[in-house]
Amino acid sequence: MTKSLSTNPANDVVIDGKKYNTFTEPPKAMAAERAKASFPVREMTYYLDGGEKVTEYNEAVWEQLERAPAFDNTDYYDVCGDHELLRARTLAKVGAIAEIVTDGRSERDIQKVLSFVSVIDPGAMTRIGVHFGLFLNGVRGSGTSEQFNYWVGEGAANLSNFFGCFCMTELGHGSNVAGVETTATFDRNTEEFVINTPTIAASKWWIGGAAHTATHGLVFARLIVDGKDYGVKNFVVPLRDRNTWNLMPGVSIGDIGKKMGRDGIDNGWVQFSNVRIPRLFMMMKYAKVSKDGKVTQPPLAQLAYGALISGRVSMVYDSYTWARRFLTIAIRYACCRRQFSSSPGGLETKLIDYTFHQRRLLPRLAYAYAMNAGSAELYKIYFAATDRLASTKPTDKEGLQSAIDDVKELFSVSAGLKAFSTWGTAQIIDECRQACGGLGYSGYNGFGQGYNDWVVQCTWEGDNNVLTLSAGRSLIQSGLAIRKGEHVGAAASYLKRELNAKLNGRSLEDLNVLIDGWEHVSAVGISQAVDRYVELEKEGVSQTEAFERLSQQRYDVTRVHTRMYLIKSFFENLKTASPALQPVLTDLALLFALWSIEIDASVFLRYGFLEPKDISTITVLVNKYTGKVREQAIPLTDAFNQSDFVINAPIGNYNGDVYNNYFAKTKAANPPINTHPPYYDSVMKPFFTRKFNDDPDLSALEEEEAEENE
Amino acid sequence: MTKSLSTNPANDVVIDGKKYNTFTEPPKAMAAERAKASFPVREMTYYLDGGEKVTEYNEAVWEQLERAPAFDNTDYYDVCGDHELLRARTLAKVGAIAEIVTDGRSERDIQKVLSFVSVIDPGAMTRIGVHFGLFLNGVRGSGTSEQFNYWVGEGAANLSNFFGCFCMTELGHGSNVAGVETTATFDRNTEEFVINTPTIAASKWWIGGAAHTATHGLVFARLIVDGKDYGVKNFVVPLRDRNTWNLMPGVSIGDIGKKMGRDGIDNGWVQFSNVRIPRLFMMMKYAKVSKDGKVTQPPLAQLAYGALISGRVSMVYDSYTWARRFLTIAIRYACCRRQFSSSPGGLETKLIDYTFHQRRLLPRLAYAYAMNAGSAELYKIYFAATDRLASTKPTDKEGLQSAIDDVKELFSVSAGLKAFSTWGTAQIIDECRQACGGLGYSGYNGFGQGYNDWVVQCTWEGDNNVLTLSAGRSLIQSGLAIRKGEHVGAAASYLKRELNAKLNGRSLEDLNVLIDGWEHVSAVGISQAVDRYVELEKEGVSQTEAFERLSQQRYDVTRVHTRMYLIKSFFENLKTASPALQPVLTDLALLFALWSIEIDASVFLRYGFLEPKDISTITVLVNKYTGKVREQAIPLTDAFNQSDFVINAPIGNYNGDVYNNYFAKTKAANPPINTHPPYYDSVMKPFFTRKFNDDPDLSALEEEEAEENE
Repeated sequence: MTKSLSTNPANDVVIDGKKYNTFTEPPKAMAAERAKASFPVREMTYYLDGGEKVTEYNEAVWEQLERAPAFDNTDYYDVCGDHELLRARTLAKVGAIAEIVTDGRSERDIQKVLSFVSVIDPGAMTRIGVHFGLFLNGVRGSGTSEQFNYWVGEGAANLSNFFGCFCMTELGHGSNVAGVETTATFDRNTEEFVINTPTIAASKWWIGGAAHTATHGLVFARLIVDGKDYGVKNFVVPLRDRNTWNLMPGVSIGDIGKKMGRDGIDNGWVQFSNVRIPRLFMMMKYAKVSKDGKVTQPPLAQLAYGALISGRVSMVYDSYTWARRFLTIAIRYACCRRQFSSSPGGLETKLIDYTFHQRRLLPRLAYAYAMNAGSAELYKIYFAATDRLASTKPTDKEGLQSAIDDVKELFSVSAGLKAFSTWGTAQIIDECRQACGGLGYSGYNGFGQGYNDWVVQCTWEGDNNVLTLSAGRSLIQSGLAIRKGEHVGAAASYLKRELNAKLNGRSLEDLNVLIDGWEHVSAVGISQAVDRYVELEKEGVSQTEAFERLSQQRYDVTRVHTRMYLIKSFFENLKTASPALQPVLTDLALLFALWSIEIDASVFLRYGFLEPKDISTITVLVNKYTGKVREQAIPLTDAFNQSDFVINAPIGNYNGDVYNNYFAKTKAANPPINTHPPYYDSVMKPFFTRKFNDDPDLSALEEEEAEENE
Repeated sequence: MTKSLSTNPANDVVIDGKKYNTFTEPPKAMAAERAKASFPVREMTYYLDGGEKVTEYNEAVWEQLERAPAFDNTDYYDVCGDHELLRARTLAKVGAIAEIVTDGRSERDIQKVLSFVSVIDPGAMTRIGVHFGLFLNGVRGSGTSEQFNYWVGEGAANLSNFFGCFCMTELGHGSNVAGVETTATFDRNTEEFVINTPTIAASKWWIGGAAHTATHGLVFARLIVDGKDYGVKNFVVPLRDRNTWNLMPGVSIGDIGKKMGRDGIDNGWVQFSNVRIPRLFMMMKYAKVSKDGKVTQPPLAQLAYGALISGRVSMVYDSYTWARRFLTIAIRYACCRRQFSSSPGGLETKLIDYTFHQRRLLPRLAYAYAMNAGSAELYKIYFAATDRLASTKPTDKEGLQSAIDDVKELFSVSAGLKAFSTWGTAQIIDECRQACGGLGYSGYNGFGQGYNDWVVQCTWEGDNNVLTLSAGRSLIQSGLAIRKGEHVGAAASYLKRELNAKLNGRSLEDLNVLIDGWEHVSAVGISQAVDRYVELEKEGVSQTEAFERLSQQRYDVTRVHTRMYLIKSFFENLKTASPALQPVLTDLALLFALWSIEIDASVFLRYGFLEPKDISTITVLVNKYTGKVREQAIPLTDAFNQSDFVINAPIGNYNGDVYNNYFAKTKAANPPINTHPPYYDSVMKPFFTRKFNDDPDLSALEEEEAEENE
């Protein structure tokens, strides 16, 4: 095993007079990259986190998670394949998280803990998230304060023999919540509601926590009083006897079974066969049913779905935390892995030094920085809007209407950001995996499990396509409103601009010029869609049909508007950074804006901001800024401040000792001591030693036949 | 359970006077779609397969697979999570496949069987494929006929106590095969080679079949004779004692463990500690080492890597078979699933009737038809080139050089098609999954397992990015050759055209006009890259560096050229179809070409074929043709002729009874009889019944302290 490596001279590297080879050189390469830092890395962490205090707070949370025995992740990826063990482990993590989140933290801080958990074990995050984020938030949002306190008293605040699930989706109804078919029929005689599932398609489906964990469900059902359908309301329905864990009478629950990812959650289906609950288990903050069956409808129907918005907002932040994790793995690996040399027998080139490899990873590193800024901006809008809604009395209809307007703007902005950020990160995970070649396909580097766990984000809590089309409708409506001189929200106010901008010889390396360009193409795209809408209206086409025919345009305007919003957020946000950070952040911001133009070049050409020759310039500039960012690639990923525990991928560890780390992990997970496969005797040996083409010995039969014929 | 559905009037459908609801209507919807067929579906199957006889042959293969007990797929997705069971099952399938492929079929027919297996169990396909496709093909390609016959005699032809693996990739070397570090040092005294692994990074890695199955490996190692390195050659090395299944002396093997998909294959790592093999175990068709250590180098180095090309070619066909499977699932589901109604209380709309949903699925249906045509074209080139190579004597250097030129054209064309087809299908699987909402995320509808199993195709046997850049270099070289008046292959001959084409008022619904446009943008893109290359050359930039700087351009020209090639193949191929099929195939071809322009609009604008206003027309036309194809969507997917066994996704079954099928599958896989989670006593109960904030009773301590203080 001591044969000299001179047989492949491409692998001889001399550092400080000492020889290194393929196997021993990577950590040296990593250290050299780290030494290139042109900015204070720790300060960048503060910038990304939102300040030194936040960083310290975050580190305390991470430390607590990393120390918790339940969170040991040595065998995480192998356990992910073992359904039953995984679910037991996940519940143990729920217990560890519960300790942290019930210690009196604010809602924002609880969300942050859950976001962190989501990066290291999304199943555990979701499993506890359905209780705190959906059930308990739902009860808080749609129940009276007395009702909320009642369920807290039952154990809901600290999971004391209590676990809530969120029974909204049905097998036959997902995005169209208003169409769910489960019924809650008021029985005036007993002052009860009768909850019922009319067909299999009306079974509650995908209900996280239902199969094993939940004692109660917040059930979305159609309120029926005296034969009249009052639409969908929320009801708390006990699902299990908390002493015996048996199902309550009339409740049927089954396991949804295998999923694409997140098998740690016990998603279930639930059917109700005329299950009776007390009248006061209906959530009555806005809608009410009195003892004698008098129905009060809520002032605004949208109030019923508020619990979902916080999830949507946090998914933009999660898009950032997931993207940074996988980008760090791929970029670190690219700085250590060498492949091909440009001269025969010459030193092989690091992946990160190839132009195309830089282009695959580094604009996406800039994208992660942009998502971080966009998420910070979105959280501001979110807390302003929800605080206002919470502080408005349920009886103050005018105040509510005004608060709802804020929430609508929040819905529209968050819809585009949620959709394109979750898609963006799915694409980043996939590109990073491919950038690691075969080692990206290995289970131990996390991409496979990560991708499968991640992509559900594109579907749940607002399917991305549905959200995108909905945000596109809002943008067109804002464009219409501006033409009519009506008020529009802050995010759409740029639509008032003139539509005649051109590059006109200005520099494409000027942030303000790039913002001008992005605002221009977004505004023109929306304006053209408005033109078409007005035309269709004049032709007598209904509003619904007009928007239907503009489907592709709705998608396109949301895509461009959202990208513009992210670029502007990044540009605004970087102004708050310390001077030492500004140069590298400006490079990142320019790279992100320029690369985004390269991808969406056709709108810049169609809407006249750029001319064909400019596109070649854009490509040259993207090369230039990927080259600049490449020099700071390791410091920029180090600034994410993720421990090896968070990374959980041996080729992405801090020390850069990629082959050693990965080989050790593989060997520990699969000790090579067992050379015989366990199915050798049962399957393998019988196959390999089977007999071939034995002609049967028919002589006895033939003799007999001959004798008979005699 | 018999509550009327009138509570949600959106779900009342009346067909022939009978009422149906969410649950009972889907199969009726499917039947109605099927009745719309405007063409003979069976004839379309013949067209797709390449003739009636081929269809019948294919059906016989499918029947044989579906009947084989080893291929029962009832619990396929659940078993995929159970490493050990999965591998035993996969080996049983290898046995069933071996029966079929060793019955005297042609190489093409064996490839087809393996392609079919890949759709239903890619792990089984790959597991047997490493023996037949890589080991045995490798021995055939690089060994003498005596050597090939020797290994056949040892059992290699029919897996008689013999299984070969392909030890090429190392932990530290993947794409750069010429850089592998394993050594094969000739020992003149014993007439043996000594195979050795110098460092951990030189361990053979990802070796399919090594961990459990392989008795022999075809090892890529550097030939060292008298201290001189002659580059990488192939050697057969025995890995296991075939009687005891113990590892041979000096051979270390371990399991690579968990992967992103394909856990049914026992990929392993292999290290050699001075393992000795007879001289004649070196493959000596082209390279040779005589008894006394005289080395003969092969006439052309590329001859060593020929075994990989067939895999690359078959991946284009596999891209089609995988795409059609997932498209069928998503399109069938879209024809049965209803969501939202355009009027309050009105019937909900089928997903397939939404413009945007059509746009997500139907251009990709057209893409699948195009890939089928592209694959047929590629197979023609492949068989011509490989037959020629095989029939040229190893000593005929001139004949070999000419045959190699054909193979080079094959490499270039197949590189682009392999890369963009495998990426295209990965994207199709993902889009189809998302189009099925939550039910796409369920494990039982196959998308998750399918995606993970599929995407390795983007990395192995030529990483897509490496292939794309390599094909881009070839295209630029072809462009240079044309300027110098040199000969170029058939696939590049269109580069001779004039570069001044414009739409000029011609119809965008004319196939010939669209081909003109695609050829134009591809030719201009390549020509501009050639211009830039020539400039760089004049500036004194090295060839390597010039191509490096043109990385993005190389990617772009390959993307556009490959799309053009696919569109042209489709247009040519559909001319061979019967008249009854031409109208719908023409709609598909137009849709594919138009949609491709919409995606790549910027090059059509940059290179002057289209003007900005044309892009809006393209969008209108894409809407028009998705609308036309939508009417035939079910017949067009039925024509793929896939049984429910192949589909293996209850929401994609032929009968369209989506909810019933899916609920039954979920329930069968997870019988709801067990209401208590298996970890209730060990994890759940202790957590839920833990004590909170019990202030400890310190009275005894306090008394004592008080006493002491007295």
